[in-house]
Amino acid sequence: MSDRKRERLGILGGMGPQATQMLYQWILDRTDASCDQEHIPTLILSDTQVPDRTGAILSGQGEKVYKHLLEDARLLENSGCRCIAIPCNTSHYFAEDMQKELSIPIIHMPRETVRRLAEEGRKKAALLATDGTVQTGVYHREAERFGIEIWSPEPDIQKVVMSIIYDEIKQGKRGDAEQFARVDAAVREAGCDCGILACTELSVFNEYHGLPDFYTDAMAVLADCCVEAFGKKKQLF
Amino acid sequence: MSDRKRERLGILGGMGPQATQMLYQWILDRTDASCDQEHIPTLILSDTQVPDRTGAILSGQGEKVYKHLLEDARLLENSGCRCIAIPCNTSHYFAEDMQKELSIPIIHMPRETVRRLAEEGRKKAALLATDGTVQTGVYHREAERFGIEIWSPEPDIQKVVMSIIYDEIKQGKRGDAEQFARVDAAVREAGCDCGILACTELSVFNEYHGLPDFYTDAMAVLADCCVEAFGKKKQLF
Repeated sequence: MSDRKRERLGILGGMGPQATQMLYQWILDRTDASCDQEHIPTLILSDTQVPDRTGAILSGQGEKVYKHLLEDARLLENSGCRCIAIPCNTSHYFAEDMQKELSIPIIHMPRETVRRLAEEGRKKAALLATDGTVQTGVYHREAERFGIEIWSPEPDIQKVVMSIIYDEIKQGKRGDAEQFARVDAAVREAGCDCGILACTELSVFNEYHGLPDFYTDAMAVLADCCVEAFGKKKQLF
Repeated sequence: MSDRKRERLGILGGMGPQATQMLYQWILDRTDASCDQEHIPTLILSDTQVPDRTGAILSGQGEKVYKHLLEDARLLENSGCRCIAIPCNTSHYFAEDMQKELSIPIIHMPRETVRRLAEEGRKKAALLATDGTVQTGVYHREAERFGIEIWSPEPDIQKVVMSIIYDEIKQGKRGDAEQFARVDAAVREAGCDCGILACTELSVFNEYHGLPDFYTDAMAVLADCCVEAFGKKKQLF
C-alpha cells in the first residue's frame, strides 16, 4: 500500500448490483479525465450477499445486516480507501452507527440529497423509497434538519413503488413507465414541489426512462459528491 | 471473512475504467438471477494508477507495471476472491509470471478467446490490439497452441487502431465508425476468417457501435468465463 495510501474511493455496493454498476458509470461520466490515470482509483465491493435490508429491518433482524455491512466497510477502510459511498438508501439506516466504528467518512447519501433540495428552496418532498427507508425515517430525520416536509405515498401507491423495485429492477427488467405514472399522479396531487428517488433501484429506473427534473435522484447526488471529494468534477456538467 | 471465504469474483481493472465498468455490466447481463443475492459477489479494483502498459513494455519499464499489478492481485487474493479477471489484454503479458505468485487462478483472457476461435474452426485471425499486445506476442503464443494464424495490421492501419483506443475511448469519446471501416477493409483484404477485439477499449467501441459477429470480443469471452466459473450462466444468452 505504502505510496498509494488512502488514494481510493470505496464503494460498498451490490444492493443491488445494477445500481452499483450504474453509480460507477455516473462517476466516470462526471470525471474530468483524458486518460486512465486521471480517473479516480476505486475499490468496489459489490457484496450481493448482504441480506435484504427492508426485510431485515422490518422484522427486527437489522443487527445481522449491520455486522455484515460493517465488515464490508472495514475491508474498504483497510484497502486504501479515503471515503466510502454506499449506493443503497435503505442501508443508510445503519450509516451513523457504522460511522462511529470507522476512521474514514461515509458520504451520507440521504443527507447530501436533502441538503441539495434545501439549497434549491424546496419545501415538500415526495419520498419514493422502499418500505424500509420510509418506515425507519432515514430521510425524515435529515429533512427535519433542513426544514423540509417529507410526504410518502398511501399504501396502494407505495405497493407500486415496491413492485418497480423488487418485481422489475431487481429481477433485471427495465420497469414500466405506466406504473410510474400512477406514482407521479399521486405525488403531484399531494402538492409536493419535488420528489426524491430514494432507492438506487429507482435510480436505475430513472436511467432507463429519463424522469423529469422534478425528481432528484439520490444516487446522482452521491455520484457528484464522490467526484467532488477527489477534486475531479468535470466542468459544464 | 470466515463464512464468506473465497466467495468472490475478483476484477483487476481500471485499464481503462470504462472497460472495467462495461465488463461488470456484461457479467450482470449474463447472470441468471432474480434478486440481489443470486448475483455473484464481486470485488472490483479499478486501479487507474497502473502506468500505461504499452508505454512501459515497449520502453523496457515493464517491471514497474508487473509489481503494481501483482500488488493489486494480492489485494484481491487476500480479500476473499476465488479467481481474478483482468479486463486489459495488454496486461496479460504479465499474467503467467503473476500466476506463479498467486494461489488463485487468473482467467486468461487471450487463451480463452483463442480457445473459442479454435472451437469455431477459425484458421486466420486479425489481431486488433495495442502496439504492446501485438509486439509482445501474447496472442501469437496462445494462437500457436491452437493452430491459428495471427495477422496484424500494417503500420498505417495499426495507427488507426491505436487512435481509436487512445484518442477516442480512453478520452471518454465514443469513437468513429468510419475509422473502424478502414481497419475492417484491411482485415477483409488480408483474407482473415475472423477478427479479435483484443483491447478492452475496442470492446467499449464494440458496445457503442455493435460490430458484426466476424469480430470476437475478448472481453465478452472473459465475461462468459467469469459467470461460468460461478455456475451462474443464464440460459438462452
